[in-house]
Amino acid sequence: MSDNQAPQSDMRPLAVTMGEPAGVGPELIARLWQQREALELSPFLYVGAAEALQAAIPDLPLQSVSDPGEAYEIFPYALPVMEVSLAVPVTLGELNPANGAAVVGSIDLACDLALKGAVSGVVTGPIHKAALYKAGFAAPGHTEYLARRCNMPDTSSVMMLAAQDLRVVPVTIHIALKDVPKKLTADAIIHAGMVTHHDLKARFGIEKPRIAVAGLNPHAGEDGAMGMEEATHITPAIWALRDEGVDVTGPLPADTLFHAEARARYDAVLCMYHDQALIPVKTLDFWSGVNITLGLPIIRTSPDHGTALPLAGTGEARTESMLAAIRTATDMARKASS
Amino acid sequence: MSDNQAPQSDMRPLAVTMGEPAGVGPELIARLWQQREALELSPFLYVGAAEALQAAIPDLPLQSVSDPGEAYEIFPYALPVMEVSLAVPVTLGELNPANGAAVVGSIDLACDLALKGAVSGVVTGPIHKAALYKAGFAAPGHTEYLARRCNMPDTSSVMMLAAQDLRVVPVTIHIALKDVPKKLTADAIIHAGMVTHHDLKARFGIEKPRIAVAGLNPHAGEDGAMGMEEATHITPAIWALRDEGVDVTGPLPADTLFHAEARARYDAVLCMYHDQALIPVKTLDFWSGVNITLGLPIIRTSPDHGTALPLAGTGEARTESMLAAIRTATDMARKASS
Repeated sequence: MSDNQAPQSDMRPLAVTMGEPAGVGPELIARLWQQREALELSPFLYVGAAEALQAAIPDLPLQSVSDPGEAYEIFPYALPVMEVSLAVPVTLGELNPANGAAVVGSIDLACDLALKGAVSGVVTGPIHKAALYKAGFAAPGHTEYLARRCNMPDTSSVMMLAAQDLRVVPVTIHIALKDVPKKLTADAIIHAGMVTHHDLKARFGIEKPRIAVAGLNPHAGEDGAMGMEEATHITPAIWALRDEGVDVTGPLPADTLFHAEARARYDAVLCMYHDQALIPVKTLDFWSGVNITLGLPIIRTSPDHGTALPLAGTGEARTESMLAAIRTATDMARKASS
Repeated sequence: MSDNQAPQSDMRPLAVTMGEPAGVGPELIARLWQQREALELSPFLYVGAAEALQAAIPDLPLQSVSDPGEAYEIFPYALPVMEVSLAVPVTLGELNPANGAAVVGSIDLACDLALKGAVSGVVTGPIHKAALYKAGFAAPGHTEYLARRCNMPDTSSVMMLAAQDLRVVPVTIHIALKDVPKKLTADAIIHAGMVTHHDLKARFGIEKPRIAVAGLNPHAGEDGAMGMEEATHITPAIWALRDEGVDVTGPLPADTLFHAEARARYDAVLCMYHDQALIPVKTLDFWSGVNITLGLPIIRTSPDHGTALPLAGTGEARTESMLAAIRTATDMARKASS
């Protein structure tokens, strides 16, 4: 379906959640809205407290909406807000657990709107987990929380990071390096590969996704001379993925995988651990990294930085990552509906 | 001492060793000599078999020398050769262990010339270890072989890789990832830090070197939440290095260490394992990486690629890494003598 035939259902905005109101999230959303014309942004809807936006930029034009569909007409002259009110006034830079319920509430509302198709996807502002536990946030992280809200198991989702022309998927994430060889399984690699393959087709419009798989060890183990996990875990997973029709190559030495010519050979790389995935992304593009959650029934992206409390309200926080998160979600929504 | 007052002792050439005669090494050396004017190369001396050069480029102007000092006058019109003859004719692309003695002999000769000050440093062409064992090459690698030739223990040397504006030093190198947390010691980090500090001053002309130290775990362990090695090994090593007057910062999350702004904050990074060091270098600059051996009494660099047997004689092998190895050694020799 081409753009000029787009029906009303493609005119849905993105939902962008407030995140931690004392952090830089609301300010970044507000500043990007101010640049909406220069940046040619598609309409989005802010889900959270208007007060958090105003704390950062007092004179920002806001308009409250009760239906996301209103956002398209409002966006050119005011930032559309679906209000989730704070319990106590926000002080920029200072966490207040009393506002945890509003943070969680804005995530819940945005997720529910996406699940019922009222918004095209969700961009989540950065949260501070410790400030949310009292508000019933029991998940290990933002992503698992969303999975549960979507009635999916925690392990169903797959994290992708993207910057410029590079997409990486870490198979293990926030665990000590010594635990990586113990916890890495063929099943985890297969799951990451299947979800990545599916979503590259369904959400990135890539008809025949090419997936590269990094080795765990130096030189991808050099035929067992420097580690056996390539033989015992990674190669069997590659065979299983091929049996499922996935175009997958590897295990490849990680240090040869990320230069420009190598990047042109694949659409995403499965990496075996956090830094193997994050070093190349952040080396190439430190400021514009985007966190993309694959494997959920909704589109979800987020900036790859945290709440940056000390920067809140200073105007010094950089907008690139939030901008990239919004652009990526917009693009994914367009590809998913085309 | 400024360049225009350089005495005869600074007119020493570099020695560039043949490496594996059936590989791309001799061809790369020959092609770089052909471009000596455009590239503004300082004179170097080829130590190896003239025949290996001629196998790649038959009409290359060569001139045999018996004293490295002759190289300066010859270099503008012929490639100066200090001959180490092959036992059997070379066939490009095919290893022949019978020529192993010549390969080892050219390394020995170049190293000895550097030790007695007759050449300013050594650039080693890529070798194929398996083809050398019959010729008495008992060391685990090229670097350890040179250390022994210099009457140093194997562990004295420290490997640095450099590309563009990034210098990295892997503290552990060619071992399985699962062994890294077991084999990483504070002593190894301290040794790498001391040698790096010393050589950045003595050979790179950096008066007050700034050294960054990467963590081992994601987010450098996040205060022990994802691994303890930062607390048990890396931080104590940093304290010990500071006690020795080394300007050292860390442990820093590895994924935030390698973008342009971060690179401007240090002169070298100590990395905890192979891929943590090699991924950023090869992502930023896949073709021009240089391997630099620190901690030896001689200057030694080498290209960071192998013998590339299938490319030998095709003209397709890329010269960037050999060129960078020659330029880096030239620059180090100049800084060391200034």
